[in-house]
Amino acid sequence: MAESKRQPPRRGYTASKDELQKRLARIEGQVRGVSKMVAEERYCIDVLTQIAAIEAALDKVALGLLDDHARVCVLGGEEGEREQRTEEMMAAVGRLLRRG
Amino acid sequence: MAESKRQPPRRGYTASKDELQKRLARIEGQVRGVSKMVAEERYCIDVLTQIAAIEAALDKVALGLLDDHARVCVLGGEEGEREQRTEEMMAAVGRLLRRG
Amino acid sequence: MAESKRQPPRRGYTASKDELQKRLARIEGQVRGVSKMVAEERYCIDVLTQIAAIEAALDKVALGLLDDHARVCVLGGEEGEREQRTEEMMAAVGRLLRRG
Amino acid sequence: MAESKRQPPRRGYTASKDELQKRLARIEGQVRGVSKMVAEERYCIDVLTQIAAIEAALDKVALGLLDDHARVCVLGGEEGEREQRTEEMMAAVGRLLRRG
Repeated sequence: MAESKRQPPRRGYTASKDELQKRLARIEGQVRGVSKMVAEERYCIDVLTQIAAIEAALDKVALGLLDDHARVCVLGGEEGEREQRTEEMMAAVGRLLRRG
Repeated sequence: MAESKRQPPRRGYTASKDELQKRLARIEGQVRGVSKMVAEERYCIDVLTQIAAIEAALDKVALGLLDDHARVCVLGGEEGEREQRTEEMMAAVGRLLRRG
Repeated sequence: MAESKRQPPRRGYTASKDELQKRLARIEGQVRGVSKMVAEERYCIDVLTQIAAIEAALDKVALGLLDDHARVCVLGGEEGEREQRTEEMMAAVGRLLRRG
Repeated sequence: MAESKRQPPRRGYTASKDELQKRLARIEGQVRGVSKMVAEERYCIDVLTQIAAIEAALDKVALGLLDDHARVCVLGGEEGEREQRTEEMMAAVGRLLRRG
């Protein structure tokens, strides 16, 4: 948790920051789209299909972040940091698997 | 799919439309928050925690919509509609389970 | 829960009982296979691939049971039973989505 | 995949092999229990609850294997192996998230 407070020099996803924000903007638009569907009283099943698509897009973002974390923060970390960052990564996987 | 085109008189979630839109607005804000975290180069693991929280919120919305669908569109449907709406509901569950 | 105690005349899956048990026997064999892989110290990633395959097979069984339940126990239920069985079905979906 | 063929000197889970096999034997018994429930025509919802419990147990095994893999095969790997093992680990996480 201390990690979260410090201002770190570089994140795993630094290289792909723009791409990441583009994807998040698209997801934000998808959520807004679902709200519009509800406003228009569109068929429940169609709304659910959209929600499943948003979750797929979020999982894709999450898998990309995990991959960046593994490469940059874990493998690229100093000897003393790797253990803790691996632990944090596993806890994050557990939360994504909804077992956290 | 024909269902999606017709303008239906009442949806499963009609009664809770406001509540639903409030929740979706909150989720939209959470996605925007994740984008801001990325802009600020916050720690990957903290970003992942937020993504898992958004997915939990989306699942909650989805479970609510499914429940409304089962009560209003399936049980409240006419004899001839129930079968197809049950089928659509099961396909939606499969997609939420990521097995669709 | 009272439902679980009564001896019921017919289950949603009665018609497909044999097929269901064949699938479960196959899944049991897959679990035994994973145990053998561990005994032989096979590569962790290969073991994980097998576990993911078992979960996919279990989800398929679960979706089939849900479908049978929706058709036989909910739609085929008497007026007074449908509501509760729908509720139980939704709770089951929540557990399968790991949000129960 | 070449990895799977070689006889490796040590797996991530070597230390916890007995514990792992005990858990898998328990899961095998749970699957057999579900088959017995079906034979006895137990209530569909109770069968589904058991299936969700088996999936939770399998996820726990999978998370343990991933953790062992990260520590022993990735962090403990030689310079030249780490990259590929990280890649394999991420692909495994994707499959567990059902996005593989």
